[in-house]
Amino acid sequence: MHFTPSDPDFENKVRDSFSRQVFMDFIGAKLVEVRPGYCEIQVGYKKDLSQQHRFFHAGVIGTIADNSAGYAAYSLMPADSSILTVEYKLNLVAPGDGALLVGRAHVIKPGHTLTICKSDVFVVKNGIEKLCAISLVTLMEMKGKADMPAEDAFPKKNREA
Amino acid sequence: MHFTPSDPDFENKVRDSFSRQVFMDFIGAKLVEVRPGYCEIQVGYKKDLSQQHRFFHAGVIGTIADNSAGYAAYSLMPADSSILTVEYKLNLVAPGDGALLVGRAHVIKPGHTLTICKSDVFVVKNGIEKLCAISLVTLMEMKGKADMPAEDAFPKKNREA
Amino acid sequence: MHFTPSDPDFENKVRDSFSRQVFMDFIGAKLVEVRPGYCEIQVGYKKDLSQQHRFFHAGVIGTIADNSAGYAAYSLMPADSSILTVEYKLNLVAPGDGALLVGRAHVIKPGHTLTICKSDVFVVKNGIEKLCAISLVTLMEMKGKADMPAEDAFPKKNREA
Amino acid sequence: MHFTPSDPDFENKVRDSFSRQVFMDFIGAKLVEVRPGYCEIQVGYKKDLSQQHRFFHAGVIGTIADNSAGYAAYSLMPADSSILTVEYKLNLVAPGDGALLVGRAHVIKPGHTLTICKSDVFVVKNGIEKLCAISLVTLMEMKGKADMPAEDAFPKKNREA
Repeated sequence: MHFTPSDPDFENKVRDSFSRQVFMDFIGAKLVEVRPGYCEIQVGYKKDLSQQHRFFHAGVIGTIADNSAGYAAYSLMPADSSILTVEYKLNLVAPGDGALLVGRAHVIKPGHTLTICKSDVFVVKNGIEKLCAISLVTLMEMKGKADMPAEDAFPKKNREA
Repeated sequence: MHFTPSDPDFENKVRDSFSRQVFMDFIGAKLVEVRPGYCEIQVGYKKDLSQQHRFFHAGVIGTIADNSAGYAAYSLMPADSSILTVEYKLNLVAPGDGALLVGRAHVIKPGHTLTICKSDVFVVKNGIEKLCAISLVTLMEMKGKADMPAEDAFPKKNREA
Repeated sequence: MHFTPSDPDFENKVRDSFSRQVFMDFIGAKLVEVRPGYCEIQVGYKKDLSQQHRFFHAGVIGTIADNSAGYAAYSLMPADSSILTVEYKLNLVAPGDGALLVGRAHVIKPGHTLTICKSDVFVVKNGIEKLCAISLVTLMEMKGKADMPAEDAFPKKNREA
Repeated sequence: MHFTPSDPDFENKVRDSFSRQVFMDFIGAKLVEVRPGYCEIQVGYKKDLSQQHRFFHAGVIGTIADNSAGYAAYSLMPADSSILTVEYKLNLVAPGDGALLVGRAHVIKPGHTLTICKSDVFVVKNGIEKLCAISLVTLMEMKGKADMPAEDAFPKKNREA
């Protein structure tokens, strides 16, 4: 499907928002690609991200599924909107056994208020990519609420005076 | 509902498994309580776990929902079984705005192969607990595969010789 | 949880809408009870509703889970709003083996735009009620679009002139 | 993806099972196509299947999503297995406004015990097909329990003697 983003500067908007998600930096996630209605996020393996069998923890897999869907949807939204995840459903179809996790999300249905995305998460081992999880995600556009941290939205003198 | 665990030593089994999930330590999650068919996990706020509005990242919320469900189900299983999450669905109903995240999961339907749990995730701010997310989780028992890391299951000489 | 409905005449509003759902009549579903934030729907067994093992078909179970959630949410909405199901997730936890299906839905989180409900579907056999399915349902309020059939909303002369 | 069915006579097996689902006949559903790992089911519009705005009821849409997934998965299973739906999640993305509902399901991940399918449901109006719902479905193989009604599985003399 071909989408036309409301905000021509959508890539910077998405990258700015991603860079403000401290948790993405904490787990080492990289925003690899963003196109209108599409987003790819990657996370390299480190032991910190593992569960009891040394594989990627399902929590990391779910995080990548949700986040790539969020930014796929956000790529289509106006500059003065922000986005939140309403809900998602994730099927884990193979263990997260590999050196790299790759989340790829596509918008299935853009909407005035709600946008539906599908995310696939792959795990790469010895150069072979394998489907690890699949997810359907419902996202909501918050109109007129630009995505920025509280301290930027409300100037300091108002908050602290 | 009252459940009788297959393994009388279920609490140690669950705590051992939890302690081997490095990701739990990385995010600062604590296994607060485990009873037959029930589990509670808590995570204190730190900036590392935040999204762009400084709240708990949805990925952390989903991790806690899934993990507390997994250990609620695992509490009922035999000592020589391990567990994996088949799928979960999570509704985010309020922002993760607070100092503490509390995941509480109950087994709804224990089964021979599959167990269904419901997880509620609360966020605590100024001592007030608020429902933040609700989840249904499907878990699968892997019979005869005790939950232990690869290096314990396969002695060193066999792997490295 | 205690809810105050926006529309004091909520019960008639819900019953009117239910009575216009021809599919409910076709499968023999009855709206048994509606309270603010709660709805119960029942369907008696008939062979027409069965799957290959003579039990209630999962399609009927899903229908009751979704519909009872929809009317639980609709009970809280203003008179000039209508409602639609955004999505639902259903776990089937026991076969639909019995003479009666009972869907009971509660609002978990009412919202300005979205409302989240939990539905439990029970099957009754020899007077014993058993949990058959559990569902989480996301519903959306369509403000300013009263729930009525097309021919009532647009008077005849305009449509047929 | 290309799949090899365990049962070379898979099409007859699927069609036999479908024909025993009385509810499919009741709503007028037709099994249009079955291939290894794929199934298509269609339902023509009739007023009996409608909700309050005269569109296909979500219950019918969910039924078709679940059932086409079930038979896509069942096509790959051995002759002496039967199948049950563990759970599904359905996003409704457009009203069921049209003359025909078409459910198309693909196996995403076949498994020893669990199989994961994706179903798309389309609505056809004036010859134009539109995506109406999307679903992820988890199915379970019941090994050694052929899919047949109780009275055929257990001959009369044994049951009634």
